[in-house]
Amino acid sequence: MRAVIRRNKKLVCDEIGELEPAEGQVLVKTLACGICGSDLHALHYMEHMIELSRRAGGAMDGGFDPTQDTVFGHEFCAEILDHGPGSAKTLKAGTRVVSMPLTMHGGGMEALGFSNRLPGGFSERMLLTEAMVLEVPNGLPTEKAALTEPFAVGAHAVAKARLEPRSVALVVGCGPVGLAVIAALKANGHGPVIAADFSPRRRKAAEALGADIVIDPAVENPHDRWEALGVPRARAAQSMMAMMGNPVARPVVFECVGSPGVLQSLIEAAPAGAQIVVAGVCMETDRIEPSIAITKEIELTFVLGYTPEEFAGTLRQLAEGVIDVSGLVTGRVGLDGVAQAFTDLGDPEAHVKILVLPNG
Amino acid sequence: MRAVIRRNKKLVCDEIGELEPAEGQVLVKTLACGICGSDLHALHYMEHMIELSRRAGGAMDGGFDPTQDTVFGHEFCAEILDHGPGSAKTLKAGTRVVSMPLTMHGGGMEALGFSNRLPGGFSERMLLTEAMVLEVPNGLPTEKAALTEPFAVGAHAVAKARLEPRSVALVVGCGPVGLAVIAALKANGHGPVIAADFSPRRRKAAEALGADIVIDPAVENPHDRWEALGVPRARAAQSMMAMMGNPVARPVVFECVGSPGVLQSLIEAAPAGAQIVVAGVCMETDRIEPSIAITKEIELTFVLGYTPEEFAGTLRQLAEGVIDVSGLVTGRVGLDGVAQAFTDLGDPEAHVKILVLPNG
Repeated sequence: MRAVIRRNKKLVCDEIGELEPAEGQVLVKTLACGICGSDLHALHYMEHMIELSRRAGGAMDGGFDPTQDTVFGHEFCAEILDHGPGSAKTLKAGTRVVSMPLTMHGGGMEALGFSNRLPGGFSERMLLTEAMVLEVPNGLPTEKAALTEPFAVGAHAVAKARLEPRSVALVVGCGPVGLAVIAALKANGHGPVIAADFSPRRRKAAEALGADIVIDPAVENPHDRWEALGVPRARAAQSMMAMMGNPVARPVVFECVGSPGVLQSLIEAAPAGAQIVVAGVCMETDRIEPSIAITKEIELTFVLGYTPEEFAGTLRQLAEGVIDVSGLVTGRVGLDGVAQAFTDLGDPEAHVKILVLPNG
Repeated sequence: MRAVIRRNKKLVCDEIGELEPAEGQVLVKTLACGICGSDLHALHYMEHMIELSRRAGGAMDGGFDPTQDTVFGHEFCAEILDHGPGSAKTLKAGTRVVSMPLTMHGGGMEALGFSNRLPGGFSERMLLTEAMVLEVPNGLPTEKAALTEPFAVGAHAVAKARLEPRSVALVVGCGPVGLAVIAALKANGHGPVIAADFSPRRRKAAEALGADIVIDPAVENPHDRWEALGVPRARAAQSMMAMMGNPVARPVVFECVGSPGVLQSLIEAAPAGAQIVVAGVCMETDRIEPSIAITKEIELTFVLGYTPEEFAGTLRQLAEGVIDVSGLVTGRVGLDGVAQAFTDLGDPEAHVKILVLPNG
């Protein structure tokens, strides 16, 4: 079967071996699979990602070899083709499914998209764990179902934020992670939500997902809005409000950029007492000034991934229209278009999300 | 009256003007006042501290001029001498009191010890805000009452930690901040508490305050103890425990060193999911690797100071013997011994806490 393979830090279309579902596995046909920012990064910097993950005792510490072939793709919707031996066959062949990108295989857990042993979604077929696949509820289009994974990331970030009824949320960066956070905030009834991004296209997407105030940081400092929304930035003014019986609800900032320097700029600009949920993945060493974070009593909450419950909840919210992702898929490519799509995604104006359709 | 003055980055004993209590103020005689690590830092780096505080919108942004004379000292026990006009005189002259080091003065709030307008505790007398002074409960010795302020810092750090019933706490650094954290943890029934410091003297103090496991990091890595106390460091092992119905209580690390590099070393060494409460004040730019914090879902909670309730609660705990600070005061000096005491405190083996006795 055909797949897009990372080989020598390049993407090539080539044949890979056919898959045979083992016990507990299902063989699926990949219908659509999104390209994630982490794929773009991993194309060139996989060795560094693995080193960092090993130091963190993370999921990639499983004998994964970046010099060997890898098939990316962990944001997918697929169709069941066949079941492994002894299967319950609860979901029949032909059923459309999504799954967290983890497959039990050979006694271990393979992270689909970052594995030498199993292909991810940039291939015609995959092996999934039968117990983990979720049926796509009737009527949810395949392209929207494929967004379950990236939007679950937003659900998780919001679950880790200690939002209070009158909390104001600021989402910095409206790429796929920021958009997912905005969607989860609105799906859970939080607001007002301020969203900031330099890109007009991304600001438009933020607005479509329900952001209450959308700001171009080149024109206006988003932190200038806190006061008008009832959150003084200085501790003294916050204390004054509390003394008058009207304490400030905790301000929450979502860092969804992931570049060096952003964290410190937020530590300086956010209101005192703010929680900064760090969802953007900065892969480089970064500098902060702890004394400023201390004086302001900032909290930095680093988050990653999602729980099975958050993943299933996101699929439900997509199916019920609580989260409306219409218009977010801005490009579709076959396997032979993936390499070009990686290049195109470098420009935030060009695309929001590109889906790979391995079977046409 | 006599005081120790910071003048041209040196400490000099000199005469300063007599104080007259204004409305709402009490004039007190300073009985004892501790020397704090922030005093040592401020002697040489006050300008930098003020710049950082201003950028953080902090308390020092009140026209404080580091080129002018300053009298340090914010950890004091004092005796009421006289009341300002129109005073309630609830506490009579002769009453021993402590207070948060903040005095309402000339329509603003002066931070005692970091003010050009009012002297701190390294002077024979001070002006306090009548509404803020707390009577030292009968029998609590003056030297122990003077430790209310530094131990309130520990109460606050522990209040900001989200400890769970089976949480394990690691206190890194057993200087005055770390010792206060240990005392607050034990006073609130938390444990086990692991304490780590290179200094034998500080380790002995940690043990006296109730630390359950006291470690010399030169001999043993304190992070090697997590597993034996039921907290696996890797997320995979934690997930396994949760699947077996025995989820890991959140591990909490207290950073009480405040030197560059410590934060990143803790991000790398702490268990996944750990909360790191940053109570040590690092005044320099620091480097972290966000991707490791993300992979481990670390939370950094930066804390400063204490609330009036935490201050009053700490005084009560000292008076009731819930916190026993016997033996922590290792030196006593008059005003003319303060400069030498600042030098002596550079060696962690020499002292835990030195008190200044301006009238004795």
